Amino acid sequence: VRVIRLDLGFAGTRYEGWQSQGRGRTVQEVLEKALKPICGHAVSVIGCSRTDAGVHAAHYVASFRTKSAIPDATLVRALNFHLPEDIVVSRARTVKPSFHARFSAKSKVYRYRIWESPVRPLFEAPYMLWFPYGRLDIPRMRRAARCLPGRHDFRAFVDQGGEAHSTVRTVRSVRIRKSGREIQIEVEGDGFLKHMVRVLVGTLLEVGRGKEQADFVEKALIAKSRSKAGPTAKALGLTLLKVRF
Amino acid sequence: VRVIRLDLGFAGTRYEGWQSQGRGRTVQEVLEKALKPICGHAVSVIGCSRTDAGVHAAHYVASFRTKSAIPDATLVRALNFHLPEDIVVSRARTVKPSFHARFSAKSKVYRYRIWESPVRPLFEAPYMLWFPYGRLDIPRMRRAARCLPGRHDFRAFVDQGGEAHSTVRTVRSVRIRKSGREIQIEVEGDGFLKHMVRVLVGTLLEVGRGKEQADFVEKALIAKSRSKAGPTAKALGLTLLKVRF
Repeated sequence: VRVIRLDLGFAGTRYEGWQSQGRGRTVQEVLEKALKPICGHAVSVIGCSRTDAGVHAAHYVASFRTKSAIPDATLVRALNFHLPEDIVVSRARTVKPSFHARFSAKSKVYRYRIWESPVRPLFEAPYMLWFPYGRLDIPRMRRAARCLPGRHDFRAFVDQGGEAHSTVRTVRSVRIRKSGREIQIEVEGDGFLKHMVRVLVGTLLEVGRGKEQADFVEKALIAKSRSKAGPTAKALGLTLLKVRF
Repeated sequence: VRVIRLDLGFAGTRYEGWQSQGRGRTVQEVLEKALKPICGHAVSVIGCSRTDAGVHAAHYVASFRTKSAIPDATLVRALNFHLPEDIVVSRARTVKPSFHARFSAKSKVYRYRIWESPVRPLFEAPYMLWFPYGRLDIPRMRRAARCLPGRHDFRAFVDQGGEAHSTVRTVRSVRIRKSGREIQIEVEGDGFLKHMVRVLVGTLLEVGRGKEQADFVEKALIAKSRSKAGPTAKALGLTLLKVRF
């Protein structure tokens, strides 16, 4: 028996997220179904994070145990042949038996993309939030985000339904960039709570559009109350960009 | 009666090209259908070029005559509301009566995108040709393309079925760029014949993959025979990037 690490990407539009939940199609399910005939036995795949329905991954890491002796490179080709076009495996590696896609992950980088224009996005519409309500105040959003890096109780930025025992997490950085009509908010952290990035983005958007002051984010953080933060931004704009081990 | 110029974009995946041909759905058809209730009368739309089935446009210009007094900005909003998500109108302007989207166009820039990787493209798969057969020799392709700019008879690079009387066209420039795994071939010219950019790309690919020498393109150009050029590259990789007037 060996442990294999898979590096993959997926467009989340047609999935109910990563994890099998008994309803709707999930990336985990589709991957396990593709692996079964290749490995010659049923396979249980561990993912680096539970992603929400509709969230994408440019880089996602999964791991599983198998008795199969299939070479890593052959596994990649066989998997990509069987997988639908919205899931792509870029690498398979036999790793040390202690490797666990979820517990071994050190940090994750999420990117949220916003299309700021009166005209809706075209080619990248499935991967961006359309913001047609005028100009966002980027310097103000940056000021508002300054309080986020560090180890904090992020209770204000979590939606119900998560399984975490603690709401304390470490955010390493929040970067807000604008290039043409596209705004990108990148958040790196050691782990994220249910909808955490989307609530952070929704809260920053309230500041950027001038509905709230720059201290809105910090006030919510201190209050530790979900009702003090902004709405949960749509899933389609969010992409898991990078997982570090 | 006034003439309106529309600047738009479309993802060509679900269309049989721009022009109505009595079979399959075309961009022209969908646009005319959306305009009819807005203008209050049937409208005949002229496009800046016939694009092939599956070809995209980041910038496309169309024009039409209407008796409607609808303000230009209202027209944009009404159109985008009625159009499917893969056609987006960015601007409408009332122009001088002599404006004609096809005859007034001075030049067009087409971009062909190639994804050079053993792993298929993910998020931008509908807009790129996947090339999994190793490395393309970019300097060799650039050398091969040097003969193209200028006024030439491009008969070797035309597929049957076009309506043009002459196969003489002026190519202003051919630029080949590589960034990461993506290769872009950009061709600017005063007008293009049926499949011309796709045959040029297909011919350059034969050179880039080492199947033909760098003089392959020039030999085909001189021979003026379609059989001396390479195959027609797939439509999905091609995008009309810019139309100049």
